[in-house]
Amino acid sequence: MKPILTVMLAMLSISLFAQDKEDKFPASATELYLDVPVVTPGSNNEPPSDAIVLFDGKNLSKWKKETKDSLPGWKIENGELVVVPKKGGIATKQSFGDIQLHIEWMSPVMKGETGQGYANSGIFFMGKYELQVLNSHGNETYSNGQAGSIYKQYAPLVNASRPPGTWQEYDVIFTAPKFSEKGTLVSPARITVFHNGVLIQNNVSIWGNTSFKGLPKYTKHDEKLPLALQDHTDPVRYRNIWVREL
Amino acid sequence: MKPILTVMLAMLSISLFAQDKEDKFPASATELYLDVPVVTPGSNNEPPSDAIVLFDGKNLSKWKKETKDSLPGWKIENGELVVVPKKGGIATKQSFGDIQLHIEWMSPVMKGETGQGYANSGIFFMGKYELQVLNSHGNETYSNGQAGSIYKQYAPLVNASRPPGTWQEYDVIFTAPKFSEKGTLVSPARITVFHNGVLIQNNVSIWGNTSFKGLPKYTKHDEKLPLALQDHTDPVRYRNIWVREL
Amino acid sequence: MKPILTVMLAMLSISLFAQDKEDKFPASATELYLDVPVVTPGSNNEPPSDAIVLFDGKNLSKWKKETKDSLPGWKIENGELVVVPKKGGIATKQSFGDIQLHIEWMSPVMKGETGQGYANSGIFFMGKYELQVLNSHGNETYSNGQAGSIYKQYAPLVNASRPPGTWQEYDVIFTAPKFSEKGTLVSPARITVFHNGVLIQNNVSIWGNTSFKGLPKYTKHDEKLPLALQDHTDPVRYRNIWVREL
Amino acid sequence: MKPILTVMLAMLSISLFAQDKEDKFPASATELYLDVPVVTPGSNNEPPSDAIVLFDGKNLSKWKKETKDSLPGWKIENGELVVVPKKGGIATKQSFGDIQLHIEWMSPVMKGETGQGYANSGIFFMGKYELQVLNSHGNETYSNGQAGSIYKQYAPLVNASRPPGTWQEYDVIFTAPKFSEKGTLVSPARITVFHNGVLIQNNVSIWGNTSFKGLPKYTKHDEKLPLALQDHTDPVRYRNIWVREL
Repeated sequence: MKPILTVMLAMLSISLFAQDKEDKFPASATELYLDVPVVTPGSNNEPPSDAIVLFDGKNLSKWKKETKDSLPGWKIENGELVVVPKKGGIATKQSFGDIQLHIEWMSPVMKGETGQGYANSGIFFMGKYELQVLNSHGNETYSNGQAGSIYKQYAPLVNASRPPGTWQEYDVIFTAPKFSEKGTLVSPARITVFHNGVLIQNNVSIWGNTSFKGLPKYTKHDEKLPLALQDHTDPVRYRNIWVREL
Repeated sequence: MKPILTVMLAMLSISLFAQDKEDKFPASATELYLDVPVVTPGSNNEPPSDAIVLFDGKNLSKWKKETKDSLPGWKIENGELVVVPKKGGIATKQSFGDIQLHIEWMSPVMKGETGQGYANSGIFFMGKYELQVLNSHGNETYSNGQAGSIYKQYAPLVNASRPPGTWQEYDVIFTAPKFSEKGTLVSPARITVFHNGVLIQNNVSIWGNTSFKGLPKYTKHDEKLPLALQDHTDPVRYRNIWVREL
Repeated sequence: MKPILTVMLAMLSISLFAQDKEDKFPASATELYLDVPVVTPGSNNEPPSDAIVLFDGKNLSKWKKETKDSLPGWKIENGELVVVPKKGGIATKQSFGDIQLHIEWMSPVMKGETGQGYANSGIFFMGKYELQVLNSHGNETYSNGQAGSIYKQYAPLVNASRPPGTWQEYDVIFTAPKFSEKGTLVSPARITVFHNGVLIQNNVSIWGNTSFKGLPKYTKHDEKLPLALQDHTDPVRYRNIWVREL
Repeated sequence: MKPILTVMLAMLSISLFAQDKEDKFPASATELYLDVPVVTPGSNNEPPSDAIVLFDGKNLSKWKKETKDSLPGWKIENGELVVVPKKGGIATKQSFGDIQLHIEWMSPVMKGETGQGYANSGIFFMGKYELQVLNSHGNETYSNGQAGSIYKQYAPLVNASRPPGTWQEYDVIFTAPKFSEKGTLVSPARITVFHNGVLIQNNVSIWGNTSFKGLPKYTKHDEKLPLALQDHTDPVRYRNIWVREL
């Protein structure tokens, strides 16, 4: 072989060897290219672009009475959704499984009310799993029944309540339970809740359908079900309600 | 027995029986009384009362250089913390395990930069697990390297980026990994991230220490370690940084 | 009222009061009555009564070629299922989601083979997520490629391998991944594995489809898919294969 | 350049280019080398080499009375550990956190006993979280109190009980709960149970300390605590008890 060729090949082989060693772990080998949808986040407390807005102050077109297919009996005042006591709970027309939920609520100032009697309402995921709404600012009750509790199951990690007459917010990640064809539970519902920006439920496993008496338990149900708001006979207010399907 | 007595006892026994049946499931049997600490949530984007404020615009007293115990080389401008390129990463003096983190950041407007070169920085939980900071508004790169990714592991569920020159926020729940005495991994680190209020990482299990080349892996470390911010040579800005220990 | 009646009523009221206090927490209030199916467990290494037996030594009626709908090319010897190299992988005709799997396998004694070349096969859950089968008794290879690894992802916690020529067993709990309608991952596949009775994978979250080169990733697929066994050109043997749907 | 050289360099450059493209994802980039301890699995129902044997039929040297630091009052008959009613529970001298447990037990044949009265005992992880031991073969009781239940919490997925007078086995993965310094629960205890080889508890999150009356709840405790066996006044038998620390 001609000397010059030999040298060139030697250089090439050195560079190949160097490359070999380096190429065992090229940075590109652990890069992933996936389709990540673009979402425009909200500004000034507005929902992100991929949210399903359930209540924006204008009407109740996304809602119905919880127990039957008729108009919800609650009212809108100043763009706020107000529980009308004894009219019954309301539920979304649309069904949901795993969601991110943003919801704001306000306890009215109520004289002479205490414990479970002070601004009681609730957010029922899939109509079955309750995140408690209650005035818990300076108002004692059992821990797994206060604001932010998973009712009769988990007390909130901390009490981050604002006073009655003040707007509060819940930001929630809800994961639906998974049932087998036979009806047994494969994985429980799970929930993470921020109350006014403070983490109060950290991915806890829900025990079963919210139960006032006796232990909760799971009964197989659809993969998606309506979100419901409870009428517990107190004029609690809601606003700015939206979900994102996960 | 006198008739009237018989009747009264019969009535009592009926009521006792009714009570018996009902008392099998008194509502009180599933009430829990726990000690739930009271926290005052923040208003107008301020931290809650139990937060450890890491940066509020005034000074860097909670921070040090990442690699040694000396002053961090970054600067404060208009109450904002600015990466000074080539000065190295910075880390908290305090160590943390499981935390809720709030942090705001802004990509500068940079001409001619693309991909990983456009406003690159990062939040390293325990100094080891990176949540990527990058301009990903109209700037393409590999999915598991874009803003909100767990670097070289998880792409974000969606891209909720705001444009350069705009403040953005991450709200994070970080769970530290758990190691056995022998050094094996008992449970991985987990992370949930909201980007500008949009859920982008949903309780994912981190694969191991962030690795630029090759697979990540776990090496046993302390239960608490400092939080670090990366100097990737771009003048990214940070503000309003606080954590709550969980 | 007659004195005797008064006394009796007083006694009753005392007992009612006592009962009241005690009945706040009757034991019955936390008893649950559910429908728990009865299963007859196996004796002498036989499957339980609710198992779907995939191979019991007699025939391959539950199996097909992995890549098309034709007869599997593997053979049965002494009631054992033997990989016939180059005939291709085999898959169950039935599709599965969440399962408990029991499977036994044996590495042949092979002269001159090492690393990934010694008795390589694999169990692919849903045809996509591989639990490695390999001789790892005194045979070195990369940790996330040895027997009991989730291939190219998780090394086993310990190496509980038996020597070639000896039967080994895997007992597995596999949870299928869950995808949203949009195709994003809601929850990853998870797996727990006992190797010869020793826990080697503890409910780990699978990163995505098993990938020989580059990072694994998830692509939305059916909720149930066939279980597959790999032909990696080595005459590995299998026996006593059954699953229980969870 | 000489033609032959030109050709050779052209070929080299082609091969380099091909390699370049291919080397983006060399298989080696996703190989992990970790220290995986070798464990010799047991044969014929014997414990693996890294197990801590708690009872092998010979003596009770690993056990003490549950409530105080004195000799356990139970007896050994034919190499079997027998509950001596009214002698009180027993506990290991050693404390444990996350473990794999293997334990075998047998219900005596008892005439005239039913429900919770038929061969009641229990395995208390960390002395606090009970996996129920009971004859549940043809013996009705509340579901979350039958054999294999997490007592007063989770019913088993199926009833895989063998008859009284027959040996049964539990294979368990127990994960200890994690508490914050403040005493709040960071992650609950979790448990997976196989009963006679059949999965009956699938990584469920324990609600808190086992409670006979009222809801269970968590109280911060040490990271490791003794394993206890319950004396519920029935002469239940145990054998072949071992754990592996995870």
